[in-house]
Amino acid sequence: MENGDGNEGTSAFHVPEWMQIQFADQKQEFNKRPTKIGRRSLSRSISQSSTDSYSSAASYTDSSDDETSPRDKQQKNSKGSSDFCVKNIKQAEFGRREIEIAEQEMPALMALRKRAQGEKPLAGAKIVGCTHITAQTAVLMETLGALGAQCRWAACNIYSTLNEVAAALAENGFPVFAWKGESEDDFWWCIDRCVNVEGWQPNMILDDGGDLTHWIYKKYPNMFKKIKGIVEESVTGVHRLYQLSKAGKLCVPAMNVNDSVTKQKFDNLYCCRESILDGLKRTTDMMFGGKQVVVCGYGEVGKGCCAALKAMGSIVYVTEIDPICALQACMDGFRLVKLNEVIRQVDIVITCTGNKNVVTREHLDRMKNSCIVCNMGHSNTEIDVASLRTPELTWERVRSQVDHVIWPDGKRIVLLAEGRLLNLSCSTVPTFVLSITATTQALALIELYNAPEGRYKQDVYLLPKKMDEYVASLHLPTFDAHLTELTDEQAKYLGLNKNGPFKPNYYRY
Amino acid sequence: MENGDGNEGTSAFHVPEWMQIQFADQKQEFNKRPTKIGRRSLSRSISQSSTDSYSSAASYTDSSDDETSPRDKQQKNSKGSSDFCVKNIKQAEFGRREIEIAEQEMPALMALRKRAQGEKPLAGAKIVGCTHITAQTAVLMETLGALGAQCRWAACNIYSTLNEVAAALAENGFPVFAWKGESEDDFWWCIDRCVNVEGWQPNMILDDGGDLTHWIYKKYPNMFKKIKGIVEESVTGVHRLYQLSKAGKLCVPAMNVNDSVTKQKFDNLYCCRESILDGLKRTTDMMFGGKQVVVCGYGEVGKGCCAALKAMGSIVYVTEIDPICALQACMDGFRLVKLNEVIRQVDIVITCTGNKNVVTREHLDRMKNSCIVCNMGHSNTEIDVASLRTPELTWERVRSQVDHVIWPDGKRIVLLAEGRLLNLSCSTVPTFVLSITATTQALALIELYNAPEGRYKQDVYLLPKKMDEYVASLHLPTFDAHLTELTDEQAKYLGLNKNGPFKPNYYRY
Amino acid sequence: MENGDGNEGTSAFHVPEWMQIQFADQKQEFNKRPTKIGRRSLSRSISQSSTDSYSSAASYTDSSDDETSPRDKQQKNSKGSSDFCVKNIKQAEFGRREIEIAEQEMPALMALRKRAQGEKPLAGAKIVGCTHITAQTAVLMETLGALGAQCRWAACNIYSTLNEVAAALAENGFPVFAWKGESEDDFWWCIDRCVNVEGWQPNMILDDGGDLTHWIYKKYPNMFKKIKGIVEESVTGVHRLYQLSKAGKLCVPAMNVNDSVTKQKFDNLYCCRESILDGLKRTTDMMFGGKQVVVCGYGEVGKGCCAALKAMGSIVYVTEIDPICALQACMDGFRLVKLNEVIRQVDIVITCTGNKNVVTREHLDRMKNSCIVCNMGHSNTEIDVASLRTPELTWERVRSQVDHVIWPDGKRIVLLAEGRLLNLSCSTVPTFVLSITATTQALALIELYNAPEGRYKQDVYLLPKKMDEYVASLHLPTFDAHLTELTDEQAKYLGLNKNGPFKPNYYRY
Amino acid sequence: MENGDGNEGTSAFHVPEWMQIQFADQKQEFNKRPTKIGRRSLSRSISQSSTDSYSSAASYTDSSDDETSPRDKQQKNSKGSSDFCVKNIKQAEFGRREIEIAEQEMPALMALRKRAQGEKPLAGAKIVGCTHITAQTAVLMETLGALGAQCRWAACNIYSTLNEVAAALAENGFPVFAWKGESEDDFWWCIDRCVNVEGWQPNMILDDGGDLTHWIYKKYPNMFKKIKGIVEESVTGVHRLYQLSKAGKLCVPAMNVNDSVTKQKFDNLYCCRESILDGLKRTTDMMFGGKQVVVCGYGEVGKGCCAALKAMGSIVYVTEIDPICALQACMDGFRLVKLNEVIRQVDIVITCTGNKNVVTREHLDRMKNSCIVCNMGHSNTEIDVASLRTPELTWERVRSQVDHVIWPDGKRIVLLAEGRLLNLSCSTVPTFVLSITATTQALALIELYNAPEGRYKQDVYLLPKKMDEYVASLHLPTFDAHLTELTDEQAKYLGLNKNGPFKPNYYRY
Repeated sequence: MENGDGNEGTSAFHVPEWMQIQFADQKQEFNKRPTKIGRRSLSRSISQSSTDSYSSAASYTDSSDDETSPRDKQQKNSKGSSDFCVKNIKQAEFGRREIEIAEQEMPALMALRKRAQGEKPLAGAKIVGCTHITAQTAVLMETLGALGAQCRWAACNIYSTLNEVAAALAENGFPVFAWKGESEDDFWWCIDRCVNVEGWQPNMILDDGGDLTHWIYKKYPNMFKKIKGIVEESVTGVHRLYQLSKAGKLCVPAMNVNDSVTKQKFDNLYCCRESILDGLKRTTDMMFGGKQVVVCGYGEVGKGCCAALKAMGSIVYVTEIDPICALQACMDGFRLVKLNEVIRQVDIVITCTGNKNVVTREHLDRMKNSCIVCNMGHSNTEIDVASLRTPELTWERVRSQVDHVIWPDGKRIVLLAEGRLLNLSCSTVPTFVLSITATTQALALIELYNAPEGRYKQDVYLLPKKMDEYVASLHLPTFDAHLTELTDEQAKYLGLNKNGPFKPNYYRY
Repeated sequence: MENGDGNEGTSAFHVPEWMQIQFADQKQEFNKRPTKIGRRSLSRSISQSSTDSYSSAASYTDSSDDETSPRDKQQKNSKGSSDFCVKNIKQAEFGRREIEIAEQEMPALMALRKRAQGEKPLAGAKIVGCTHITAQTAVLMETLGALGAQCRWAACNIYSTLNEVAAALAENGFPVFAWKGESEDDFWWCIDRCVNVEGWQPNMILDDGGDLTHWIYKKYPNMFKKIKGIVEESVTGVHRLYQLSKAGKLCVPAMNVNDSVTKQKFDNLYCCRESILDGLKRTTDMMFGGKQVVVCGYGEVGKGCCAALKAMGSIVYVTEIDPICALQACMDGFRLVKLNEVIRQVDIVITCTGNKNVVTREHLDRMKNSCIVCNMGHSNTEIDVASLRTPELTWERVRSQVDHVIWPDGKRIVLLAEGRLLNLSCSTVPTFVLSITATTQALALIELYNAPEGRYKQDVYLLPKKMDEYVASLHLPTFDAHLTELTDEQAKYLGLNKNGPFKPNYYRY
Repeated sequence: MENGDGNEGTSAFHVPEWMQIQFADQKQEFNKRPTKIGRRSLSRSISQSSTDSYSSAASYTDSSDDETSPRDKQQKNSKGSSDFCVKNIKQAEFGRREIEIAEQEMPALMALRKRAQGEKPLAGAKIVGCTHITAQTAVLMETLGALGAQCRWAACNIYSTLNEVAAALAENGFPVFAWKGESEDDFWWCIDRCVNVEGWQPNMILDDGGDLTHWIYKKYPNMFKKIKGIVEESVTGVHRLYQLSKAGKLCVPAMNVNDSVTKQKFDNLYCCRESILDGLKRTTDMMFGGKQVVVCGYGEVGKGCCAALKAMGSIVYVTEIDPICALQACMDGFRLVKLNEVIRQVDIVITCTGNKNVVTREHLDRMKNSCIVCNMGHSNTEIDVASLRTPELTWERVRSQVDHVIWPDGKRIVLLAEGRLLNLSCSTVPTFVLSITATTQALALIELYNAPEGRYKQDVYLLPKKMDEYVASLHLPTFDAHLTELTDEQAKYLGLNKNGPFKPNYYRY
Repeated sequence: MENGDGNEGTSAFHVPEWMQIQFADQKQEFNKRPTKIGRRSLSRSISQSSTDSYSSAASYTDSSDDETSPRDKQQKNSKGSSDFCVKNIKQAEFGRREIEIAEQEMPALMALRKRAQGEKPLAGAKIVGCTHITAQTAVLMETLGALGAQCRWAACNIYSTLNEVAAALAENGFPVFAWKGESEDDFWWCIDRCVNVEGWQPNMILDDGGDLTHWIYKKYPNMFKKIKGIVEESVTGVHRLYQLSKAGKLCVPAMNVNDSVTKQKFDNLYCCRESILDGLKRTTDMMFGGKQVVVCGYGEVGKGCCAALKAMGSIVYVTEIDPICALQACMDGFRLVKLNEVIRQVDIVITCTGNKNVVTREHLDRMKNSCIVCNMGHSNTEIDVASLRTPELTWERVRSQVDHVIWPDGKRIVLLAEGRLLNLSCSTVPTFVLSITATTQALALIELYNAPEGRYKQDVYLLPKKMDEYVASLHLPTFDAHLTELTDEQAKYLGLNKNGPFKPNYYRY
C-alpha cells in the first residue's frame, strides 16, 4: 500500500531514477547470511517504498524485545507445520483477535467468503503475495483461502509487518515469511522462501511495489510460463509494469489495481481529505482557522487536502502545472499561484504533486518563522530535504516525526516526517479504505484467474468497470445505502444492461 | 447547446426513440412553402433539442412584431449582398453591440484571433455550421473567419436565434439563415440554404444536435467526399455519430466535443452548481435553508446540484443506479435512498439522470402539498409529465414556466418548465461556459482540418488531451491564475513534455 | 420591511441626516391636493425607505393603466362600505387568491388564528398599521382581526403596495388606504385617513419605518394617552425610537422587533446568504466560480454573503472596522484586507456595512474593467453613487437595475440598482422570512396589549426571549423538525423552566 | 480552563449537585497531613473540574518517578528563595524553554508587555491565582509581573500541572504551589499557601473553577475587604458567582471572562470545530465520510461539531430543546430529530448540551454495533456512563481513552474518555485559543484593578465590549489581517467613536 501517493497534480508515469539500475546488475546471494553491516550494503536493490517508515494503529503491540533473528529460530505451529517464518508463533492468539476485529469492518470480503461457500472461483489458484502484513491483509488472505486458493506471503515493507498477525496466519496454516524490522537481506530472503519451494509453483502474483515481480523476473523467469497474471496495487509497481510492457518484456497479463476508480477516489480524494487534518493535528496541534496554506498540486490528493482545509477555515492557495486541474482549482475557489508568490506569507506548505524538488532550499529560505512543511504526495522527493542538511542549519527533534530546522537568525521551519508521506507517517489509514483495496485485489485475482484464453494479453489492464462497480456495491451496505434498479423499460431506453456496467470507459466520475 | 443534459447518473449512450425513424422515411419538399398547419406535420422529423424552449438574457430585444416571414422578404446588407435570411437586417447595429460585449467576456477566442494574424490555420476551410445563434456564437463565427475560414450558418433550434445578432452577422458578410420562431419547415429550409449552394461546397461541419449532419447524410451524401470532419457538441448529436460509427456508416472523422474534460466539468458540474439555485429562485422565490430535497442521479450535474443545495442549507437525498456514483454520494455526505423512501417528505424533487420516467405518476401522487418538481437532466423525459394530463388534475399556470398541478383533494405540485431542462428554461448560461465550449469547437475544427492524413479515421474521437489543456490554459487569465512550469529536471523525472499533455488518457480529474 | 439593512459590520445606531430635520419644521396641508409638481416638493419630509424601489414576485399583476387617482374615485365594497381607498376594489378576487396562497406558507400565523378560536388576546385592540401591503401583510392583518383587533392600515412605501391585495382587504372590511405609485402627498394623506377618524382612536401602533409614529407625534400627540404601545420593525424606525427615548420624548412603550433573534438571523444571515446569489444572477448572469469578491462588512449580512459566495467557488476578501467581526472573518477563512489592497483585482464589490461612502469615487476609479458593484447593506449610502454623476463618465442602462458606467478610456463598471439594496431591488424576499417577521409583530402586539401595568415603561424593549422562542417553535413544523423536551430531572439540573426561556438574555446564538 | 463545556444547547445556569453542599459543612484541617486513605475522604469538597483528567501535548515530560511528596521536600531556587512548592526545581530549564516557545505563539500578551514598559497598569496589584499551570499560563503570569503585579499561584486541577513549567516559574521568583498528581488535600493546601501568607494580602483574584474564591470565602472572608475584584474563567466558577450574587453574598465585583465574545466563539465554536475531528481520529481512526452522526445540542460547541462533520462528508442529525437553536440547525441543513428517532441507525453519538443524562442506558441499549459515543459538552454528566457499570456488560479497554462496552449478544459500543470531555481528554487545546483567554484575563484584571470607585458594584460583569474588541485586535496580526479605520465623517454618521466600541451590548456576532 502506498496510500495517497501517485498521479496527483501530474502524471503517474514518472521514471524514478532507480529504474535505470539494470536488473542484471544485482547479484546477491541468499544462502550466506550477511553480517549486520553486510546487510546494509544491499539497500540499493530494494524499492524505496519497502523501507518507508510506516505507522500503524496497532503499533501498541510492539513488544519485540527478543533479539534473535526469526531466521535462526525453529518454530512450529500447533498443527506441526514449520513452513513459515515469523517473529513469534506464540503471539498468534493476540493476532487472531486483531483479525477478528478487522473482519467486522471489512464486510465486502466477508460477503465474498459467503458466496464462496457454493463455488470456489480460486480453486487451484496458487497465489504468491507480497504486501503489507496487517490485520486487514490477513482478512484478504484468509478470504482468498476460502475462495479456494493456496497462498504464500512475504512483506512488501521491512517495517510494516504486525508480528502478531503474521503469527496468527502462520498458526492458521498460511506460509508467511515476514516480521517487523527485517534487514534488506531478510526482505529478499523472505520473498525467495515464498516462491522457491519444492513441489509448489505459483500461478498468480499479488504484488505491492513490484519487488516480488522483480524477484521472479530476475531469478525464476521460467515461472512465468505457469503464471496467469499479476495483480499490482502500488503506483511504483504499476509503473514498473508499464515500463516492462512498453519494452515488450511483460510476459503475462497484469491488472493495474491502483488506477481503479474506487481505489483512486477513496484512497486519494476521500482519505486524504481526512488524513491531512489528522496528520497536521497529531504532529503540531495547530489551529487551522485563519491559517494561510499553499497546496502544491491539485490532483485527487490535492483536491482532498484543499477541500478539508477550506472547510476548517484556512485560506488555501494552489499551484499547478496542468491547466485543466488549474482551472478546476479556480472554479473550486482557490487562488492559483506560483509558489514564489506566496511563499513568504503562508503558514503551511503541503506538497502533493508526485514530482521532485517542488519545494526547494530557496523556497525554504524564504518561508516565514514557524512555517510548517509537509508532503502528502509521492515518496519523499517533493521537498528537497537534503538541501537542509547543511552546517549553518540546526535540526531539533521536538516530537516524534516533527523537526524544527533552525536558521542562523533564529527562524524555525517545522518539517514533518522528514518530508516523507505525512498520512502514512503521522496518521492511520482507515480500515474502510483498506477494505476497498483488498476487495479490488481479490476480484482482480478472480478475474485474471478465470478469464477465458485471449481476453487478456501480455499487457497492463485496468479492472473491468463492472468489477469496479461490484466492489463499490459491496461497500454500500456500510452506509445503509439503497441503490435504485433500472426498470426494463429504462434499461432499454438507456441501452444498458440492468446489472451494469453503467458508464462508458472514459467516464470520469 | 444542450447544457447540463447527458450522461448524468447513467450513460450518455441511450437510444432516443426518434432514432428508430429511418432516415429514408423522411420525404420533405422544400420548394413548396407549407401552410401554417402543414408545417406542424413535419415536426416528427426534427430533433427534440431543436424545439426545446430556450430562454436568453438578451430576450429583451425581442420586438419582432413584423409578421412577414423572412423567407418572403428581400433584404440586402450594406455591401449589397443578399446571401442570407434573417428577420431584419436593420437590427444589425444593436446586434453588433451585443457581440462586442460578448467579445469582452470571451478572451480565449480573442486570443486565438490575435495568434491568427500571423498564420491562418483555417485558410481554405469552408465550414457549414448549425448552432444556437447568439452573441457568443457570433464571436466564434467571426473568429473562424479571422482564422481563414468561410462559413455558412443555420440555427439548431427554432426559438433560440437572436435576430439582432443574426442581422449583425449578415451585415458583416456571413451567410446566416436563421430567425427566432422558425417553423419546422423553415428550419430545414435554412439548413438546406447553407449547404445547397452554387459553386461552394463545405469541407467542415460544425453541428449541435446532429440535424445538419443528418441533412447532409440524407440529401447530399456525396458531399462527404470533400468533408474533412465533423465537430459535434451535443449529447444527442454525439450519440447519433456513435450509432453511425457502430453501424459502419460514418464516412468522415468526427470530434466529440461534448465529452471533453473542460466542457463536461464546466458545463455540467460547475455550471449546474449555480444554475440549479438560479432556476429555482427565479421560478419559485423559495428559500433553500432547511428544505428537504431529493436529487435523482449523482453524475456531474447531480454532483453540482447537491453541492449547491447542501451549501445553502438544504438536506439532500440522492438516488442512483450506479454503485460507484452511489458510493461517491455517501462519501460526500448524502443519504442514498430509493425515491419511494423519501417521496412523501421532500420539498423538492430534481432529476438529473438522463433516463426516462424517473419520476412517475405514482411518485407524483405521493408527494406532499407544494412539492416542487423539476428536471436538470436530459431532454424532457425524466418526469412523466404526460401522466399528469388527466381530467381529475387541474393545471394552473401561476407564472411563466411555473404550473401548479392540483389534485382533487387540493394538493398542489409545483411543476417547473413542464419538465424540460430547468437551467435552459428558467436560467441563463454564463458566457464563461459558452466561451469554453466555443473555444473547444474552434480548436477541434483546426485539429481536424489540419490533421495529417491518417491521424483520424472514420470514427468518433475525443479532443486530444493537449488541446483540452490548451482550451483550459486560454481561460486561466480570466482568473488571474498563474500556472507553474516544470523545470527540465522535473519534466525528465516525470517523463513528461514540459508543454503537456500532463496526464494519461484515463485520468479522471 | 427593510430586509437586510442595518447593523451589519457596524452599529445599528447611525444618525441619518434626515433626523436632523426638526419635526416642527414640517408644515404640510393635506386638504389641498397639490399639483404633480407640487407633490414632489414634499419629498424631503418622507423617510428614505418609503421611496426605495421595491420589486415583488407579484408585480406581474401590475396592470394599472387606470390614470384616475384613487383619491378621486368613489368605491364601495360588496357590503356597502366605502371606508377605504384602494386602486380598484374590483381586483379583490385576484388579491384574495394571492392571500390564500400566502396563507399556505405562513403556518405560524394560521396556528395563531386557530388558538384564537378560544380566546381573543387582542379583543378591544384598535391597531393602526403602516407597512408594506402585500399578501403576507394581509395574512398578518386578517390574523390580527381573528385575534380580536380592529385595524386601519396605510402603506409604508409608495411603490410597494399590491393593489389587488389592498382591494381584497378592503372587500373583506379592512379600512385600507394604499395603492401602488402614491405621491408623497398621497402617502401622508393615507396615513392621516388611518388615524384621523370620527369615533375611533387607535390604542396600538404597528409601524415599519417610523413614518406613522412620526405623524401621530406631530399631528395628534394627544392620541398617545390611549396608546398602549408601538411595535416597530425597521432599523430606521427603531433608531428613531431610541432617539426619542434618549431625548426623554418617548411617551409609550415600544417594542423593537427588528433586533429579535429570529428576525436578525433569518432576515439577515440566512436570507442574504441566498439573496446575494439571486440578486447577482438575475442582474448579471455571471458565474461565481473563481471570481474574486470583496465584501465590505462582516455583520450578519456580510457573513451570509461571504458564506454563499465561498460555497459557490468565489474567492472572498473581507473588510471590517470591528476587530471581533474581523477575527471571525479570519477564522471563517476569509482574508481580512483594506479595500485599497484588493480594489484593483476584484471582480465584485459588495457593501454591507450600514456605513456611508464605503466605496468612494477613488475606489471606483481604480476598479478593473467589468467590475460589478452592489450594495446589500443599509439604504443607498454605502456606495458614493453621486460621485459617478460627472460629465466624463457615461451611464448606459443595459438592463433593468443594471447600469454600465463608462470611463473615458472605455473601462466599464457594472453598477446594480444604482447602489440601492440589491436584495430588495433585484431579488425577492422569501415568504418564510416574512412569516417570521409577521409572527413576531403579532406576538409583540399581543404582549404589549396584554402586559400588566408597569411591566413596560416609556422605553424601547426587545421582545421577551420566551416569545422569540415561541415564534421559532411555530416555524419548526415547516421543517418537520422535532424538538426534544426536558425531563423534570433535567430541567431541575439546569435550573430551567421546561417551557423556556432556555437562555440568558446575553446569549449570542 | 474548561474549554468547550458550558452553555451549549441549553443554559449556562444549571445547578450542579455539589452546590447544595453547604460551605459551612466543610471542616478540614490542613496542618495535619492526612494519610493516603484519609486524603481520599476529602474528595467531596473539591470541584469536579479540579479532578477531570487532562491530556496535554507536553505530557512527554512526565518522568515523575520521584515518589517523595513535594510538601516534604526542601527546595530553593537559585536566588535562595524557598517560597514555592513544586515537584523539582531542577526541571526549571526545560520548563523555561517550553515557556519561550509558548511566548512565540502568544503575541498579544507579548504586546501587552511591550506597552507595559512605559506604564505599569498593575503596579501595586497583589494577585492570587488558581488556574491550570501550563506554559501558556506562565506567559500570562510573567506578563502580569511585567505589568507591575505581584502574583502567588496554585493549580486548579490536580492532574494538569506541568512540573517543569512550575519549576521555571519558581526559579523566576514566582511563589507557585502546584505539581502534577496532587491529592485533594494537597490541592487545598496549595491554595491555602497562596493566600495565607505573613505580610502579604491579595487584592485581586484570578480563578478558574471557583475553588480559590470558595476557599477565601470560607476561611478568610475578611480578605475581601481589600480585594478589588475577582476574574473568573470557567462556566462552573461563573455559575457560583452568579449564585452568590443572587443570594446577596457577593462582596466584590467579579468579571465573567467565560462569556466574553472572543472566548465563547473561539473556545467553543472555532476550537470545537477542529477538536471534534481530532478527538475522534486519535481515538478511533475512523473515516468520517458517509457516517451518520447525531449531535445533541446546537449551541456554539454543537454548531462547531456539526459544521466540521458535515464538511467531512458525515450525515448529521441534531437534537435540541431550544426552538431558536433548533431553527438555526434547520437553516444550517441539519435534520432536527429526537434522539430516539435515529439512535438505531447512527454511527456516532456526540453530546454537547451541558445537560445530564442526555444519553441514557435505554439509548445505549438500542445503538447499533460499533456505535461510537462521546461527550463534547459539560463535565461528564451527559452520558449516563454509570448505567453501563452492570454485570451483564463487559468493558474492554482497547486503547488509552477507548473502551468497548460489550453486550451479551456481542454488540460493542465504543465509549470515548469514559464520557468525559473528548476535547480535553483526547485532543489538545491550540495555543491560539489559550492566548485569547489569557489576554482576556489580563485585561479583566487591569480593568477591575484600575476602575474608578463605583464603576463596578458587588455584582458579576461581562468584560466591557471595548476590551473584548481590544483582545481581538491584539490577535489580528497573527493572520496578517488589516483592519479598516473609520473616517471622521463615517464615525459621525454612525454615531461611533473611531476606536470603538463598535456594537451595542446586545449584538450577537
